[in-house]
Amino acid sequence: MGGPVRSETPSGRDVGFLDRFFRPRNVVIVGLSRSAVGAPVSVLTTLKDYGYGGEIYVINPNMTAADADGFNVRASLDALPPGIDLAVISVAREQVRGVLEGCIAKGIEGAIVITQGFADADEEGRRLQENLLALARANGLRILGPNTIGVADALSCFTSSFIELKNDDAPIGQVSQSGLFMMGHHLINNEPAGFCMSIDLGNASDIDLVDALTYFGRSDRIEVIQCHVEGIVDGGAFVETASRISKEKPIVLLKAGRSETGRVAVASHSGAAVGENEVYDAAFRRAGVVPARNAEELRLLSKALVTYTPPRGKRVAVVSFSGGGAILAIDAIEGAGLELARLSEKTIRAIEDLFPPWLAVDNPVDIWIPAARDFDASFPHILEQVLRDDAVDAVICIYCSYTLPKYTALDSSRYVGGIASRFPEKPILCWSYGLDIAGFSKRIEDGGAAMVFPSLDAAANTIARMADYGAVRHAAPRGAPPRFDVDDVRVGELLTSAARSGSRYLFRESLEILEAYGIDTARWKLARDEGALARKAAEIGYPVCMKVVSADIVHKSDSGGIRLNIADDRALLDNYRGMREDVLRASPGATIEGVLLQAMAPEGKEIMIGARRDPSFGPCLVVGAGGIHTEVLDDYAFLLAPVDETEARAMLAGLKLYPMLRGVRGEAPCDIDSIVDTLLRVSQLVTSHSSIKELDINPAIVNEQGSVVVDARIVT
Amino acid sequence: MGGPVRSETPSGRDVGFLDRFFRPRNVVIVGLSRSAVGAPVSVLTTLKDYGYGGEIYVINPNMTAADADGFNVRASLDALPPGIDLAVISVAREQVRGVLEGCIAKGIEGAIVITQGFADADEEGRRLQENLLALARANGLRILGPNTIGVADALSCFTSSFIELKNDDAPIGQVSQSGLFMMGHHLINNEPAGFCMSIDLGNASDIDLVDALTYFGRSDRIEVIQCHVEGIVDGGAFVETASRISKEKPIVLLKAGRSETGRVAVASHSGAAVGENEVYDAAFRRAGVVPARNAEELRLLSKALVTYTPPRGKRVAVVSFSGGGAILAIDAIEGAGLELARLSEKTIRAIEDLFPPWLAVDNPVDIWIPAARDFDASFPHILEQVLRDDAVDAVICIYCSYTLPKYTALDSSRYVGGIASRFPEKPILCWSYGLDIAGFSKRIEDGGAAMVFPSLDAAANTIARMADYGAVRHAAPRGAPPRFDVDDVRVGELLTSAARSGSRYLFRESLEILEAYGIDTARWKLARDEGALARKAAEIGYPVCMKVVSADIVHKSDSGGIRLNIADDRALLDNYRGMREDVLRASPGATIEGVLLQAMAPEGKEIMIGARRDPSFGPCLVVGAGGIHTEVLDDYAFLLAPVDETEARAMLAGLKLYPMLRGVRGEAPCDIDSIVDTLLRVSQLVTSHSSIKELDINPAIVNEQGSVVVDARIVT
Repeated sequence: MGGPVRSETPSGRDVGFLDRFFRPRNVVIVGLSRSAVGAPVSVLTTLKDYGYGGEIYVINPNMTAADADGFNVRASLDALPPGIDLAVISVAREQVRGVLEGCIAKGIEGAIVITQGFADADEEGRRLQENLLALARANGLRILGPNTIGVADALSCFTSSFIELKNDDAPIGQVSQSGLFMMGHHLINNEPAGFCMSIDLGNASDIDLVDALTYFGRSDRIEVIQCHVEGIVDGGAFVETASRISKEKPIVLLKAGRSETGRVAVASHSGAAVGENEVYDAAFRRAGVVPARNAEELRLLSKALVTYTPPRGKRVAVVSFSGGGAILAIDAIEGAGLELARLSEKTIRAIEDLFPPWLAVDNPVDIWIPAARDFDASFPHILEQVLRDDAVDAVICIYCSYTLPKYTALDSSRYVGGIASRFPEKPILCWSYGLDIAGFSKRIEDGGAAMVFPSLDAAANTIARMADYGAVRHAAPRGAPPRFDVDDVRVGELLTSAARSGSRYLFRESLEILEAYGIDTARWKLARDEGALARKAAEIGYPVCMKVVSADIVHKSDSGGIRLNIADDRALLDNYRGMREDVLRASPGATIEGVLLQAMAPEGKEIMIGARRDPSFGPCLVVGAGGIHTEVLDDYAFLLAPVDETEARAMLAGLKLYPMLRGVRGEAPCDIDSIVDTLLRVSQLVTSHSSIKELDINPAIVNEQGSVVVDARIVT
Repeated sequence: MGGPVRSETPSGRDVGFLDRFFRPRNVVIVGLSRSAVGAPVSVLTTLKDYGYGGEIYVINPNMTAADADGFNVRASLDALPPGIDLAVISVAREQVRGVLEGCIAKGIEGAIVITQGFADADEEGRRLQENLLALARANGLRILGPNTIGVADALSCFTSSFIELKNDDAPIGQVSQSGLFMMGHHLINNEPAGFCMSIDLGNASDIDLVDALTYFGRSDRIEVIQCHVEGIVDGGAFVETASRISKEKPIVLLKAGRSETGRVAVASHSGAAVGENEVYDAAFRRAGVVPARNAEELRLLSKALVTYTPPRGKRVAVVSFSGGGAILAIDAIEGAGLELARLSEKTIRAIEDLFPPWLAVDNPVDIWIPAARDFDASFPHILEQVLRDDAVDAVICIYCSYTLPKYTALDSSRYVGGIASRFPEKPILCWSYGLDIAGFSKRIEDGGAAMVFPSLDAAANTIARMADYGAVRHAAPRGAPPRFDVDDVRVGELLTSAARSGSRYLFRESLEILEAYGIDTARWKLARDEGALARKAAEIGYPVCMKVVSADIVHKSDSGGIRLNIADDRALLDNYRGMREDVLRASPGATIEGVLLQAMAPEGKEIMIGARRDPSFGPCLVVGAGGIHTEVLDDYAFLLAPVDETEARAMLAGLKLYPMLRGVRGEAPCDIDSIVDTLLRVSQLVTSHSSIKELDINPAIVNEQGSVVVDARIVT
């Protein structure tokens, strides 16, 4: 504990420079008015209260030494001695550049820019920020911010916050994009803080999430990393770094701003179904982070992962002082996707003598009667026996929190911590009611081996997330995605030729690209004119369908550009002429290259498979219900590409549609291997060809014989 | 405040007898050992601490007057003076009857039976409980319990709890099935209690939920009723009583034990889709209660409905001291189904001068800069202007809770309460972070006009639930369900004849019953033997389908008893013979009455409509996606029957499927009126014929021409 971050750099970025931000030997503060001295909202006040012992310089030409209250006043940066570690800057946005130039001139290599009004504000602010960054990069200066309250470090007692903070020793490293988190908010027992190092990235113009993760990942002081992010710019580096760290240390992460971007209006185009939230979720799954849904969960999960070892599974026993509480616990357990443990005969035999004969002992264990009869002889014994049961992974303990000393004889907090320490792999999560929940919680949590949760739902959710994280930590390394032997040359030609012709929406070429990747498509032929129709149809065999081919028509069905079930030559010609009329009426002046004739799709289930290239995280795959149901089912699975076979199967298995693919009520099961194969080939395609921005297969028809792509679109 | 319940009984039960439970002039306690005197877990201790001033009698032949600590010891019930209001009984379960007999002999008319081990335990306990009830009913004795801790009343200072309670003056009446709620649990600021009257119904053998609701509904002391229920026996009386009360007083309700019964495994049978949870939810909607998802929400919503007037709508403004907090608030607002208010130009003009020119003022209003510049000139002004905006229904206010007196100058709690009092119809819900959330919350909540919420999600959810409740209170009375002119005589004959023949699963008769109710079914004919096949098919017209008719076959398709798309006489005969073989192989010895020939269903969307008769709440209707999709879509709407037209339309409009019925991408819209008509007729059918236990129409096919029932089943 307490040393600098390990100097060996097994992989990842060199982030040793962050030492000067968290533990500067001295600091210069630029932008303080005289009135800041002794004011409540002032970094000087906060530094003093937080206990910082380093030298503090304040730059202000209007202050005199008489104003100084244990710090050094200088009229300008020029007047500073050499060897200053860090500058904290809160001048107006137009003046920041000048201050940074002064810092550079003095050899200062770190600056925290508190000032707002940069990329967080307007175009001018964005320009100013780029300008600062260029200056810093050219001169070896590292910047935290702008638009940040900076850092806090409980060991060095340094902070750049201008609002009071609590100094805490929780082995949690906090990285956020808002000062709110550093200032602390309710957890349990009204405990604010809950970190020993915190960094607010603000606009993250230079120092970013990956730097902070890397730094905390290497620090011996940090056992759990807590992240609040509003956006991630370098998605690839994040996934690489976070997935490496999370094998050793949990990263609990809250992604804020989920609703602002919102879900793209669901459409039949699978690529469009991949909204920003879905890409983030896919990235977080790949990175193995522990996802938090809101600020409270973020802090609760962080604290829990400091307190507990993740359980081995999701089988939960309930030991409850209240029968009504036990029923509430069952609701919470099932709501969180956990399982009610089945106690062994041995466990039941070991405790049943404590209960009246008319009470059938079972999980939940309602301990009111034995506890009321003889608390010391029953409570610890029952809790221990339940924990010893091999079928139990974790225990929710519900107990009344009486006021002391009146009820000391019935105080379960005398036992919980000690028993929890003896079963470190089986977390005991407490929930309480009564007149002294705060006192009860403090007594239990001070031991560091158990927690009292603000709700049964929070306790159950915590077990579920900890168990998921345990699985991440113990998971075998990911398999290599398969490399299919495909015709990449042909795909490259098709993409290049489309790019040259200026088409962004590829339709016929999409089918050819999929075929070059060994993916079955419904037999099709292009007919460029009336004369070719019958011959092409004969090559396919009736019945056929007809789809207009035109770079000007994006939504074929909206323009009347699709005709189904054409049975013979006569109908073929009628449909061809009718379709041309309809399409040209809907899109006057459209260039029609011809029509695509295609074998009618076989009977089967409709699937959609797609991908979208995210600017930060790269290609993200989606699979779900296809055809008309894409719009109704809201049944998707997302993963970052490339995926391996295990992942592809898991994507399918997670769909609501999956039981139907397996066959219900005597239906033959669909050829699921063929969908997995298609998914893996699409994964390889979008990974190998970065010019594909969006890919939609919708529908592919799958039945017991295999799967076949009926319609596809690629956007470049 | 404070008087007895109003004596006029506008409607509902006479519950004046509950006065003797909540405010007994005196009480006799039976079942206390000598060691209970002065013990922490003892009703004597609790009564003393709670401040009860009435006469207390204790029955115990082994106690002497010397043991008494301000109460009267008697050796037996015989020795009591006359005029005792209430007995509190905690003897062994076998002895309760004897004690009740003694009470009756003494003219005591109320008893709280604390003892466990009755219907909560085993068969013997259930028998004992019925026995007690019969005794009480025969002798004019009212019983609370057994298996209860009884009551608490903060004004009379009476309680039967043997565990400490907090005496509180919140105008909340609490009715629960577990003592846990009476003992209090975390709300905000570690405040336990949160009620001025509480009743634990325990096993509710006599005094039940409807009694308690009626009593609290009439009490001037109670503004909000808080319910925890595990089950409701008299569903009809509950819905009638609760819907009447909730037009005047909110009833916040937590239904516990949702997961134990669980969702019936989804099947294609619509009736089976109506699980216990769905019936309860439908009943709660009809009753206009405010639903709580867990214990914390139950208490938070109760407190909120005491504090606030429900807002007029769901348009929320955010006034935040933190930009990061504002983004979290947006997530919470959208997550709760609320809308981010669009501030008017006028509001923006009234406050924009307080902001730097580069900051675009908008909702959320990030007040950090003006508040830091001049708190008193900006915070109250901005909050007021936002509240004045006609486009704003409620405000979430995020503010840092500083420690005082250091930060008194920046303390927003100086303003919030006063402003909230001036805008009573626009709730201000606060969320805070910082070092003194507890103190900040107390300062704001002590004023009684605003609350600080434990999370933004809780604040947003509270706005949503309050707005929903406001709509219940202001809703026009329900319309009368239509009365269709139908052939009830024919339906009665069919049901009677089926009952006589012992069939519980009606198939062909179901179609006839629906027809008698004016519901279109796909044209069908019954063929009893080979000879009738061709003639019947000719009456329908090819192609037809064939379904086996047999009282022994419940699942036709599993037994090979369905053949589709039969094109001609030859195929008809082949299918008939093949089907007989298949069915008899699957169900040897089944009696086959014949086959039902039916016109092939038209093209269209598949709908399922069903109903199930709940033993407590009566018939519950369901509508959802039909056919194979019933199993995948998880897309249902439930309502108690009978429904009126507005309700039937709302059921459909809530389905995920609804946009598809309205027509997507140029499809013709389905005839929604025809589905509404069918739903209303089914509603009338199951309301009029109580022998119908379950009804399944699956699928009905709906297209632009109308809807037609293809398959139906009635279970009697």
